[in-house]
Formats: sequence, structure tokens, C-alpha cells
Amino acid sequence: MTLPIVARNYREQSPLVFCLTNTVVTNFTANVLLASGAAPAMTDLPGEARPFAAAASAVLVNLGTPTTEQLRAMEEAVESASAAGTPWVLDPVAVGALPVRTEFARRIVARRPTLIRGNASEIMALAGWESSGRGVDSLDSVQEAIAAGRELAVKYGSVVAISGEADAIIDAQRTVLVHTNGIGLTRITGGGCALGAVCAGMLAVHEDPFEAAVAAHGYYGLAAEKALAASSGPGSFAVAFLDSLAAVEPAALETLNCEEKTYA
Amino acid sequence: MTLPIVARNYREQSPLVFCLTNTVVTNFTANVLLASGAAPAMTDLPGEARPFAAAASAVLVNLGTPTTEQLRAMEEAVESASAAGTPWVLDPVAVGALPVRTEFARRIVARRPTLIRGNASEIMALAGWESSGRGVDSLDSVQEAIAAGRELAVKYGSVVAISGEADAIIDAQRTVLVHTNGIGLTRITGGGCALGAVCAGMLAVHEDPFEAAVAAHGYYGLAAEKALAASSGPGSFAVAFLDSLAAVEPAALETLNCEEKTYA
Amino acid sequence: MTLPIVARNYREQSPLVFCLTNTVVTNFTANVLLASGAAPAMTDLPGEARPFAAAASAVLVNLGTPTTEQLRAMEEAVESASAAGTPWVLDPVAVGALPVRTEFARRIVARRPTLIRGNASEIMALAGWESSGRGVDSLDSVQEAIAAGRELAVKYGSVVAISGEADAIIDAQRTVLVHTNGIGLTRITGGGCALGAVCAGMLAVHEDPFEAAVAAHGYYGLAAEKALAASSGPGSFAVAFLDSLAAVEPAALETLNCEEKTYA
Repeated sequence: MTLPIVARNYREQSPLVFCLTNTVVTNFTANVLLASGAAPAMTDLPGEARPFAAAASAVLVNLGTPTTEQLRAMEEAVESASAAGTPWVLDPVAVGALPVRTEFARRIVARRPTLIRGNASEIMALAGWESSGRGVDSLDSVQEAIAAGRELAVKYGSVVAISGEADAIIDAQRTVLVHTNGIGLTRITGGGCALGAVCAGMLAVHEDPFEAAVAAHGYYGLAAEKALAASSGPGSFAVAFLDSLAAVEPAALETLNCEEKTYA
Repeated sequence: MTLPIVARNYREQSPLVFCLTNTVVTNFTANVLLASGAAPAMTDLPGEARPFAAAASAVLVNLGTPTTEQLRAMEEAVESASAAGTPWVLDPVAVGALPVRTEFARRIVARRPTLIRGNASEIMALAGWESSGRGVDSLDSVQEAIAAGRELAVKYGSVVAISGEADAIIDAQRTVLVHTNGIGLTRITGGGCALGAVCAGMLAVHEDPFEAAVAAHGYYGLAAEKALAASSGPGSFAVAFLDSLAAVEPAALETLNCEEKTYA
Repeated sequence: MTLPIVARNYREQSPLVFCLTNTVVTNFTANVLLASGAAPAMTDLPGEARPFAAAASAVLVNLGTPTTEQLRAMEEAVESASAAGTPWVLDPVAVGALPVRTEFARRIVARRPTLIRGNASEIMALAGWESSGRGVDSLDSVQEAIAAGRELAVKYGSVVAISGEADAIIDAQRTVLVHTNGIGLTRITGGGCALGAVCAGMLAVHEDPFEAAVAAHGYYGLAAEKALAASSGPGSFAVAFLDSLAAVEPAALETLNCEEKTYA
């Protein structure tokens, strides 16, 4: 893989990432995109989502706090991104635990997201498996969810990324575990949600979405490790994380701890 | 009282706090809950609020920036929490100053919140007294509002908490003033709103809501004192406050400066 | 000009700034207002926006992430502010790039905002010129936009402020360039949006809106310079910026680098 190249392209091209995301993490997501070198933009308005999804470099659809109007904008954005060939990411936040978004996610996933990113419970629920999420927390392990992820990957032609102690990136042929110490990200809100936005940006600058997803997770995780060392609690971690996203060199991805898994 | 036990239970049980709150403070509120040891979750969607309020450990209804749709979700959440016996907190932000929420709050309070938390002007306005709030700022003193708080406590069987220089916790029989230096919290947005979320979490882990409210205010205030000492302005205060929420030991509540008041 | 006096009045009078703004920057905007000495308040609800715009010291209408309901509230707020003589600021975020807000902005600007604040592309698009914004980013220069700004100033009797490497403040007679190093503000989200809120607050405490706008931009830029020196990345910059807003003395505006421009 050529992970440093993906990260370098991201920094140089500064992809415009159109985020339809939840109200808890809008600010953090925009700052994560800016710190890492991309350009964030948000609108949740039907009539604007359609043209903007065609013009943007990539689209993120995050189901954290949908409104009736935002769901309509998301439908527009996904239709438009699909038609334009714009890569898009589906983050099925709390799918399985909450009914309206679960129904919506199961419908919209048929539009074949370039990438699906979630925690183990969300990925299992999206695949129609039994899961045990509690709100936004996963009570299932990444290992348990990998087979569900593969099902989604095969069915929709998507790359599937499962966040957890190690992050699993899956497509129809491959599974890679990305090992970084992301414990700091579990102590602040939006760690996973903003990662979805960075993934979207990486998809925009690299042809192979599987490699783009690995690069995004690796880059993000390395920044989290660096920030953990520089902080003394969740407040200072979030600040240091933004500083680290701006400071991590693409070349650092050369030594990323990636583990290729083979399954029968 | 057994304040350290309440705080210890909160940390150990990590209550899932379902927040229907305002767009200004969603991120800060979620980070405050995470830093203090609880689990935040948000949805403002009718159809999701009803089942989630029954499944969550506690519910926060904060009227800071309502939308028509969010108000419907709040009604659902409150009905559902009441039916399920889930404790819930009403934060009547800017009630008295703004008409739609004032009407809504006066109606929803009849559902008997476990706790009502606000500043002096909001509590007075909710009780139907003359008040002089200016937007979200109180121009009335905690002392002036205690009798209004007692009226609400008697009428609705609620605990009432009034934030100010000292915080007053009131029920039909008792009034306690919690003395901490919370001046830093007045210089950032969301100090009171996020406290309502912590209160909700404490209610979920302790049977006596009065003690739970005192513990929440004490714990929060001690973290604010610690943060003030470690910061040099409102930006660094907010960061240090999150670090402090994670660092304060439950045992620190043993020496909390609580003053019991007796009124004729 | 008497810039230090404007800043001193702002601190002493603590104007109540009613912000109808986007979900990405609500928290940061409120914290910027508090740190600089003003009082923020938000509601996006029709039925509340009308009375509140008449009661507030100033109103900010920022088109970053409109909803159908918020647009109705904005109309109310602008009507009410105009009728009451309350100063109001229009921030035409991404106008030109996104259709619904573009149509809305061109209609609402006829209500004669006290101040229009945006980047070069937004000001050019609002004036009906060809522009080349990309989402919220300007691809045009401040110099190119000054003539468009003057057109708006003449047509609507507004002061127009264009943010860029140097900020241009324009009315029918005057143009001033405010030179500060605001590079840090371009690396975080909401730098321009929150400036619009500070402008609104300055308008509320000073009779000449042109001077008020210059003072707001100068004060904001000086705080950004101070923060840049004290930070090591975009995360720590945002924190230091809030600390600096609270620390900058009004007297520092005496030595602000302002350049008066004369045009044929």
C-alpha cells in the first residue's frame, strides 16, 4: 500500500468534504477537517444538498441526530453523489438502537456507499444481525462484527470500517486491522464521527477506497497517539488532537502497524 | 448525606443520559458527561425520543433552542420517561423572556420533573412570579428565587436547583446551599446546561433525588474550582474543566461546603 | 476614530447579541461573545425571534446552515430589528455557491442590514457579480471585492466588511483596510462567523456603524495575533484566542494598523 501518498494528496488537494452530520459534532468535525488539511462545508437543506453533493469532493452522511428535513437533504445528497460519482460515506450512528434512523439506514445503504464506518454494534445492526449497542456505544467487539462487515461489503460493494480497540477495514477480498492507541478518542465526543469525515476526504484523493480508508484510520490514530502523550485529560486531549492532526507527517504512515487478516 | 457514594456510583455505573438540548451546548454537554464518567446520547426526532427515553438511564429536557420538531420529541420523551419511571430534568432556559418555550415549560412541568434546574430568573418565571431575566442571564438573585423554587417543589414534587453565586437545592422540606467558586462557569457558554445533564446522570444512580442534585452540584463546582486555578482565561478554563471533571475524586465531596437553611 | 472607546463601551455595556447562526459555530460564537465581554443568546424559533430581536441589543443573521424554520425566524428577526431600530448584521455564508440561501440573502438584504460581513466571494455574489467561492472558502481577493462591497453599501446604506488577508471596511464614502495577522483564524472553523457576532455587539454600543465595524475587526484581529504567538496548532489556537479576547485591552486599538483608501 501507499499510505503516505494518500495522506500527501489529501494535504495538497484539500478536498471539499460536504458533511451532513449530527449537531453534537459539527464544530469538532469541521475543525478536524481543517486541521488535517481538508475543507469542510455543511448544509442540511433540501434544495441545497443536491447541487452541493455534485460539486463537493466527497460527502459524509452521519445519522447521529437526524431531523425530518435533514433526512430529506441526505436522500438528495446521496442520490446526487451517486449520480455524479462523488464518493460518499455512511456513518450509521446508533442504528439498531433507534428506529427511525435504522429504517433510513437500511434503505439508503442500497445506494451503495463508498464506505460504511461505524462501531461493531452499528455494523452488525446495519447488516441485520443481532447486536447490543447502547445509544452510541458498542457493546460488541470488532472481531464479532467483521463477518457482518464483510456481508455489507459484498452486498453493496462498499468498504466497511469498524472502529474499536483495533480498527478493521474490510472489503469483499481483504481485511486489515489498523493498530493504534486511540483510547483518547473514546473519552471525547465525535471521535468516530469526525473520522468518517476524514475518510470521506481521503476517498476523494485516492482511487482505491480500501487503501484510502486504511490511510485515514492510520493517520487519525497516529494523531490520537501523539495527542494522548501531550495531554492530561479529555479536555486537553481534544485540543492536542487538533494540533496533532496538523502536525503528523504523511511519512509517519510508513511505519503504521497494519495486520492483514485472512479468513476462510 | 452520602455524597461521595453518589459520585462513585455515577462513575461505576456510567448512566446513559439522553439529552434533548440546545444546539449551542450539545458538544460541550456530551464532553462533560464523558469526562465525568457518564454516557451521552442525543436524538431530537419524534418516533425515536419515545423509545429512547424508556431505555435511557435518565433524560434531560433543555429548552435553549427549541424547534417545532424538537418540542414534539420532548413531549414524547417526557411522557415516556414518566411512564417508565426514568428520572428526568427540566432546564427552563430563558423561560419568562421568550414566549413559546415559556408556554411549553409551564405545560410540561405538570408532568412532574424529577429535577428542575435553572437560574433565579428562570425559576421565578416558571413559578409564575415576576422576574427580570435578560435572555439566558438572570438578573435576580438566588435568595429571591428560593421561595419560588419551594412553590415548584411542593406543587410538582420536584427537586429544584437554582444556580448562582451559591447554588440552592430545594425540595418540599429541605434547602441546602452548595458553596463552590463557580465563577469560571459564568464565563463560558453551557456551564449551567451541562450541569443539568450531570444532574440527570446522578439521579439515575441514587434513590434520593435531593442528595443526587447536591452531589451533582458539588462535584461540578469542585471541578470548576480546580479548573479555575489551572487556567488563564475562558478558553483554557473550558479545557481545564473537562480535565478536572475526569480528575476530581468522589471522596472530595466529603468536605463540600454545604449549608442547610431553615425557613419559617 | 475613537476605536478604544468603542471597545471600552462594549466591555462595560455587555450588549445582548441575538444570534441566528449556523450549527457549526453556535458554541464558538457564544464563547467568543462571552470572552470579549458581550452576552450571547440564541433562538431559531418563529414566534420567539420577533419579540427577541426587538429586545436584544443587536441581531446577527448568519446563513451557514439554514433550515426552513430558521429562515422563517430570520425573516421575523430582521423585520422586528428594522422596526425597532436594532442594528443587525447579515453574514451571507456561501451565498453564490448554494441556491436557497442565495435567493434568501438577495431578498433579505433589501431590509438594509446595518452591516454586511463576508469573504470576497460572498460579497461579490451578494452584489450579483461573478464570483468563485468554493463552499465557505473565498477564491476571490479582498481587492477584487471592494467595488462590489461599495455597490452594496450605496444601494442598501449598509457598512460592508470583507474578511481576508487584510479586512476591508466600506461604506458609501470611506474604505479602511485593517491589517492584522489573522492567519490562525483561517485554520479553525467559525473565525469569520463569530466575528460577525462581535461586530453586532460593537454596533450596539456606538453610533457610527463604520467605526464600530473597524473596532470589531481590529479588536478581533489583535486577539488573533496574540493567540497565534501563544499556540502550537489549530486546537491550541482556538483556546488561546478565547483567552486573548478576554485579555486584550481596549487601549491596544490605539495602535491598530488601519489604512484609509481613496478610490476615484
